[in-house]
Amino acid sequence: MILYTSPGSCSFASHVALEFSGADYEARILDFSSDEQRSDAYLSINPKGRVPALVTDQGILTETPAILTYIAQTHPEANLAPLNDPWAFAQMQSFNAYLCATVHVAHAHRHRGYRWADRESSYEDMRNKVPQNMGDCFALIENDMLKGPWVLGDAFSVSDIYLLTIARWLEIDRVDTKPFPRVMDHRARMLAMREVAKVVEAVSR
Amino acid sequence: MILYTSPGSCSFASHVALEFSGADYEARILDFSSDEQRSDAYLSINPKGRVPALVTDQGILTETPAILTYIAQTHPEANLAPLNDPWAFAQMQSFNAYLCATVHVAHAHRHRGYRWADRESSYEDMRNKVPQNMGDCFALIENDMLKGPWVLGDAFSVSDIYLLTIARWLEIDRVDTKPFPRVMDHRARMLAMREVAKVVEAVSR
Repeated sequence: MILYTSPGSCSFASHVALEFSGADYEARILDFSSDEQRSDAYLSINPKGRVPALVTDQGILTETPAILTYIAQTHPEANLAPLNDPWAFAQMQSFNAYLCATVHVAHAHRHRGYRWADRESSYEDMRNKVPQNMGDCFALIENDMLKGPWVLGDAFSVSDIYLLTIARWLEIDRVDTKPFPRVMDHRARMLAMREVAKVVEAVSR
Repeated sequence: MILYTSPGSCSFASHVALEFSGADYEARILDFSSDEQRSDAYLSINPKGRVPALVTDQGILTETPAILTYIAQTHPEANLAPLNDPWAFAQMQSFNAYLCATVHVAHAHRHRGYRWADRESSYEDMRNKVPQNMGDCFALIENDMLKGPWVLGDAFSVSDIYLLTIARWLEIDRVDTKPFPRVMDHRARMLAMREVAKVVEAVSR
């Protein structure tokens, strides 16, 4: 498999999940500074012009929640999802959907306001609200969603990988992390894992 | 099961999926005009203050993609998802993630700008961009994503229900639908289905 990725983006989650899965894969890092994600070559792979995109024998898959679940389902021996418990699986899906549709979107208003508005004054307005919005999201995660020690409780899953990915954005989003000791402890435990450290190093080379 | 829903919202998708599933369920319609979704009673059910929320014997589930997949997995006889084909399942998940994280978000900037900004001028700027953004999303769906006759090809799935739900917003979002004949044909076929008509009638009472 080939994963198209970009440093600092949510594609980090798919990259880490591949590392945990034990799959053979290659990570290809796109150069966002030269808008490589908008090149004809990449648009022929992913017409959305975004990362991640996972090239498999069966075709190309996009969208982080779909890629994470696909990696977990096709590598059951890696125990990355509660595959035989529809209720636990649904809770995992719910957590991932919240991250992609609410938390990631809240974060994107810091630097991608052009997606939703045209004026510089609107971008500034959006940027100013990001610390509050991301703080509200993480308060919900801290107090209601992160069961501990892992997101779903005793079982590690791709939701932990996805939470880490977005929790790494807290400082750049100017969020005060002191109210979130459980999230920060989770992040530290994740960053100490060999598979995570390997991907952090690979994308920072 | 009890589904908390609101007319015109994305909770329509979960409602229709329940109808197709053959499950015993009750739909409870929240009154958004009196901010019932922000009442203490409802926040104790869903601390996100949003719909949908599905109350089950095992607990409460939120987020449309998670609810749709859960209904499909727990009612396999209804054939609402390619449960035994991880690749087709991943394509379904990818489609649903695009709808929830990109298309629904593009739509929400028409009337929920307060989520991401504080100034009236920003809300106006966001509103003005909605027809273009929704049009861009539906161009991708029309040309690249909707395989036909159903989203995934020959097999009907919850992705068809979710697409219908969001395609019903095109006129209110002031999108010119002429460039999307395949989406509009899909919408018409969906609206003609008995299960869909029943839910449309139930929420408009």
